[in-house]
Amino acid sequence: MQSQISRLGEFDLIQRFFKTQSELMLANNPGSVKLGIGDDCALLKIDPTEEIAITSDMLVSGRHFFPDANPEWLGWKALAVNLSDLAAMGAKPLGFTLALALPGPDSAWLEAFSKGLFAIANQYNCPLIGGDTTAGPLNICITAFGSIPKGKAICRSGALVSDDIWVSGTVGDARLTLAALRHEIELTKEDLREIEAHMHRPTPRLDLGIALRGLANSALDVSDGLLGDLKHILEESGKSAEIFLDRIPKSSTLLKQSQVIQNQFAANGGDDYELCFTAPISKRNVITQISADLNLPLTQIGSIKSMQHATPEIRIIDKDAKELDTQEANLLMKSFDHFA
Amino acid sequence: MQSQISRLGEFDLIQRFFKTQSELMLANNPGSVKLGIGDDCALLKIDPTEEIAITSDMLVSGRHFFPDANPEWLGWKALAVNLSDLAAMGAKPLGFTLALALPGPDSAWLEAFSKGLFAIANQYNCPLIGGDTTAGPLNICITAFGSIPKGKAICRSGALVSDDIWVSGTVGDARLTLAALRHEIELTKEDLREIEAHMHRPTPRLDLGIALRGLANSALDVSDGLLGDLKHILEESGKSAEIFLDRIPKSSTLLKQSQVIQNQFAANGGDDYELCFTAPISKRNVITQISADLNLPLTQIGSIKSMQHATPEIRIIDKDAKELDTQEANLLMKSFDHFA
Repeated sequence: MQSQISRLGEFDLIQRFFKTQSELMLANNPGSVKLGIGDDCALLKIDPTEEIAITSDMLVSGRHFFPDANPEWLGWKALAVNLSDLAAMGAKPLGFTLALALPGPDSAWLEAFSKGLFAIANQYNCPLIGGDTTAGPLNICITAFGSIPKGKAICRSGALVSDDIWVSGTVGDARLTLAALRHEIELTKEDLREIEAHMHRPTPRLDLGIALRGLANSALDVSDGLLGDLKHILEESGKSAEIFLDRIPKSSTLLKQSQVIQNQFAANGGDDYELCFTAPISKRNVITQISADLNLPLTQIGSIKSMQHATPEIRIIDKDAKELDTQEANLLMKSFDHFA
Repeated sequence: MQSQISRLGEFDLIQRFFKTQSELMLANNPGSVKLGIGDDCALLKIDPTEEIAITSDMLVSGRHFFPDANPEWLGWKALAVNLSDLAAMGAKPLGFTLALALPGPDSAWLEAFSKGLFAIANQYNCPLIGGDTTAGPLNICITAFGSIPKGKAICRSGALVSDDIWVSGTVGDARLTLAALRHEIELTKEDLREIEAHMHRPTPRLDLGIALRGLANSALDVSDGLLGDLKHILEESGKSAEIFLDRIPKSSTLLKQSQVIQNQFAANGGDDYELCFTAPISKRNVITQISADLNLPLTQIGSIKSMQHATPEIRIIDKDAKELDTQEANLLMKSFDHFA
């Protein structure tokens, strides 16, 4: 068996782990895909009333995941982080390409990886349409495509003064999981099991993104930390914000931690893949109804303000209605930088 | 200065080396790009009469280029290999995403890389619309998008019996350059200078691809070796082929080498990025005219035949009109495998 595996070449492994399953998905529902894996390019046909949203994320071993990460979870997460970007624009998935560098044609790893990858691809009806494989240090690069009715994309630049600022689900659990895996914080096995899916198998909020078309004035997905990411909305929109720290939604597991850890991880944890969006106050009832329909908590955590100085600011109000001073606020707002 | 460079973070380097130049290109000619770098997704608007061609290539240090490769050439080549895939379908470039893993934020490297990248992006009017940067072993993943009138894409699967088989330009020079750089073959400095651009700065045959719409029955770009790549056309089309070995077009520099090296490198060298296509005999005059218009040699090297056995075969005819035996033919037809 080993000798058979070691003889697996590039074309065999594409066929065995990716092409067959891709063809199966497309046979059941070709959707917009006119041509999938196997030619120089894939071909998509586009509904004339729609625009195409495109996003690309590269995941590197040791930086975005542990070198011994469960490959099935990794397959899920690699597509999830891209679908999360589509969700943030209000786009509906059309398909994705996968470029993969692997130290060698490792059958067991590829089988698990493709299992996780196609699990989420099938769940969100987003077929693999092309890509590339090569030998090299482990690197996963996915580019995902979505469609959105013309003019309906939710951009970072649309926030208006007095908009409510909302966040979906809870934030901070992925950071808490990381802290537990790094033994910075001790969690019970039960607590870890409760929250680790937030880090390993995040749920892209695609239904929410689509529901927010025409409702939200701006949105992004929380990948680097809630307040740091919110800053991107403020920068693109030329606005400031006021955030009520104790309103930031946290899981019951995170709520067991110290107040400092709670605030730090929820405000600045990263890897949450929830949506942060702004919408007019008049839309509160509609948004509450969407939350009920999707069975997904949506929490109003503050408001958009006009910009008082040359750059956007976030005023952070603590539970005693006191504004955090600059040093306290900076600590909470530091966004994750892949080169820091 | 060094301290300033070392403080360059992810957001700074995207802004400095990629976003500004991307915005400049889009300001001059937004084309189909509705939203470029800076949001969760880029947005493309698509002409309702067109389809989208998508291709993705990942380049890894030590596998696709030498670790000390000239970063300016690398920037050119990384986009060129993707544009070559668009050319092979007959697509016109719309834009591309770049995902880049770098050991660190190396300003000098990035400046040269982006110079080469934007040189080819500008030449073929293909703007950078989004992407990702991260720390990690050097890895360049580009996904490129092109448009093509509905139903006009030139696929690998369309070859018909009695089609002429054509190849553009000359093949084998990239392999000869590699042999010289590896000191397998000694070349004069003049000879090396004459041919090395074929390896380092390949020319995507976009004008040819567009001219072949409605003319060629099948096409692909020669990236892994002419005869090995031709085999993909035969497999997808369910056909065999007859190739006249001495008709395969070679540069004057390659023609100085031994007959064995000439045949091996031209038939099987790889990294050529010429187009191999098939077209009816009745189109010979039109194709000769295209060759003249584009100032690009187009050479008819053989014909498509019906498949006599269960799998496609390539009969290779030598200059004495003698068919190569299986062993000789196999040597020439071995395609490059990234895991071999």
